[in-house]
Amino acid sequence: MNHSAPLRVLYRITCPPAEAEARALGIALEQSVELPAEAIPPAVEEAGIPGQVESIRATGENEHEVCIRYRVENTGFEITQLLNVLFGNTSLQQSVSLLDADLPPGLLSVFPGPAFGIPGLRRLVGAPERPLTCTALKPMGSSPQDLAELCGRFARAGIDIIKDDHGLANQVYAPFAERVRLCMDAVEEAAQKTGRRSLYVPNLSGGPSRLCAQLEIARAAGVGAVMFSPMLVGVPVFAEIVQAAGGLPVIAHPALAGAQRISASLLLGRLYRLIGADASIFVNFGGRFGFSAEECRRLAGNLRQPWAGAEIKPAFPVPAGGMTLERVGEMVRFYGRDTILLISGGLYAPGDELDRRSRDFVAAVRNFAEISSTAPLRDEA
Amino acid sequence: MNHSAPLRVLYRITCPPAEAEARALGIALEQSVELPAEAIPPAVEEAGIPGQVESIRATGENEHEVCIRYRVENTGFEITQLLNVLFGNTSLQQSVSLLDADLPPGLLSVFPGPAFGIPGLRRLVGAPERPLTCTALKPMGSSPQDLAELCGRFARAGIDIIKDDHGLANQVYAPFAERVRLCMDAVEEAAQKTGRRSLYVPNLSGGPSRLCAQLEIARAAGVGAVMFSPMLVGVPVFAEIVQAAGGLPVIAHPALAGAQRISASLLLGRLYRLIGADASIFVNFGGRFGFSAEECRRLAGNLRQPWAGAEIKPAFPVPAGGMTLERVGEMVRFYGRDTILLISGGLYAPGDELDRRSRDFVAAVRNFAEISSTAPLRDEA
Repeated sequence: MNHSAPLRVLYRITCPPAEAEARALGIALEQSVELPAEAIPPAVEEAGIPGQVESIRATGENEHEVCIRYRVENTGFEITQLLNVLFGNTSLQQSVSLLDADLPPGLLSVFPGPAFGIPGLRRLVGAPERPLTCTALKPMGSSPQDLAELCGRFARAGIDIIKDDHGLANQVYAPFAERVRLCMDAVEEAAQKTGRRSLYVPNLSGGPSRLCAQLEIARAAGVGAVMFSPMLVGVPVFAEIVQAAGGLPVIAHPALAGAQRISASLLLGRLYRLIGADASIFVNFGGRFGFSAEECRRLAGNLRQPWAGAEIKPAFPVPAGGMTLERVGEMVRFYGRDTILLISGGLYAPGDELDRRSRDFVAAVRNFAEISSTAPLRDEA
Repeated sequence: MNHSAPLRVLYRITCPPAEAEARALGIALEQSVELPAEAIPPAVEEAGIPGQVESIRATGENEHEVCIRYRVENTGFEITQLLNVLFGNTSLQQSVSLLDADLPPGLLSVFPGPAFGIPGLRRLVGAPERPLTCTALKPMGSSPQDLAELCGRFARAGIDIIKDDHGLANQVYAPFAERVRLCMDAVEEAAQKTGRRSLYVPNLSGGPSRLCAQLEIARAAGVGAVMFSPMLVGVPVFAEIVQAAGGLPVIAHPALAGAQRISASLLLGRLYRLIGADASIFVNFGGRFGFSAEECRRLAGNLRQPWAGAEIKPAFPVPAGGMTLERVGEMVRFYGRDTILLISGGLYAPGDELDRRSRDFVAAVRNFAEISSTAPLRDEA
């Protein structure tokens, strides 16, 4: 039979020590043959199809990290079945979390990863070294004209990437096509004044047909990239749209991704990069969500570290979620220069204050990057 | 502005009582305008776009049930954005769970619901009243010939619905097209012997293009229905494939659905029925997963109760997950006759024992239904 390198997956199980071995074996079988050990046909057993418990390590009084090996062929070499092997039925067991996965070269080779990645996005933005700036158009309920006006103001302030809020879909008060057209006009007008063109990034939403239609509208309008949430539209759909988007970078949004007992570093880091996200938005530590600094560091690392055994481009980490101007320095120190800083709500204020904050954001990132060019930033992740 | 009935959503928040009001308002804003209250433009406020906290009810020492009203227009009247409004960013907050949603008629009317539902599936199976029987072909790693042989044995035993295990994708050891062809041959051969035709239901897996290709292969082969998991392929994809499947019932599998902090009764019950599942598989209480009897009852109710304000057909609940022959009576008493009983691993045994158990399963359901026809089953859900 085939002896290619296995898929190794790390789970956390909460249970008394005496039960850990049986629970680990239970997961190994649930995620492969889904039969009790005594009912597995000998030929299937001999072919190594059932998952194998590789190690069990106690990490707390009733907490264990379990590594399970699966035959890589069980994944069918496609993302849907890979997700299924990783966590399909076991997701229904509250006491198990999916922590990490070691994807062997034979599996990695079928995924192209990001088409642009960090170098490609840097080229488009025209910023070879410094962190990039990003903000969001909001709120839902605004007219396309209002959103376009905001878009123009952010563009004139010099923000690199101006994306739709992920709540802007195709609602009656701001239909997709009209919004995209007016925002592109605003970006263009600002570019004529400033000589620098921001990337406008619309949010796509819908089933596959609608996504494809929106992608065509966006492409025809000349947008800089598109954004949508793999967990909302379907992870395999994201992968397929990345292929269809050829020529346009794709930014992953984390909506609906947090309800999973799947570690953010695996899902938003490793897996979203694998399926082709050029940048992945996640919630920064210390904001209004509960991610830890350690998890954020690991997530950023999974997005941009060299990937052993594969030619997969690095993708940008995009920490977000209640970020403010005051934290720019801290964030650049923590994440290093290969990062997109996303401040949205924190820039919003009545009157000219929004313009002032936007200019300050742009200046802070540039200044910080210049200052630290003599003392190079630590890209620690 | 528009005064159509709002979308009302129920969340559970874990926090000290003194923080409950602020947390509830935080969710209402996060899931709509995603701006702090002071930054919301007056026109957006006046149009009623921000979510409104309708009620907060303490349900435990640090536990609160919060009802929030959203303008139905915020959903864009499509499933992706509906999911986003229900739980998009808030899914990233560990202390919040999504419990239920009251979908107003204006929203319901854009979803066709199941094309077949309970009456349609009953017609196809030829069983107007009794519970239906279902089993699964497994394990992964078996050849198409082995799976087809099993399929023939289950069909000869008289099982109504024989589905692929959800782990059978398009792996090299049992490619989709060959598996479907051989299993359909086996069902046909059994039908010629017994005069009754079981429904064979292949599992689809992949991105939208691959799903469509597999759907065409399945349709051309004359399968009885198709099955796949909305959370693996994408909930909006499921909805779109249901439309494409016209003429074929669609069964929803719960893989990857359990990792959500979304109640099973809402996701696998209400929402999967909404997007067109004719039957929805879930893990029964008392099996190897942790669902409670109360949650299972509510889930079954959401699948088949009349849906206020909409003409949406009832869908079959399919309790599964470690079920055994011994529990048939208990399950029929609990779920009533409008139920598909799924026993898979519990039928597997070496030699003739599998055939005997399969026949016993079929007989038990028929006998139970006959006995209780004088004392009608309570369809309590």
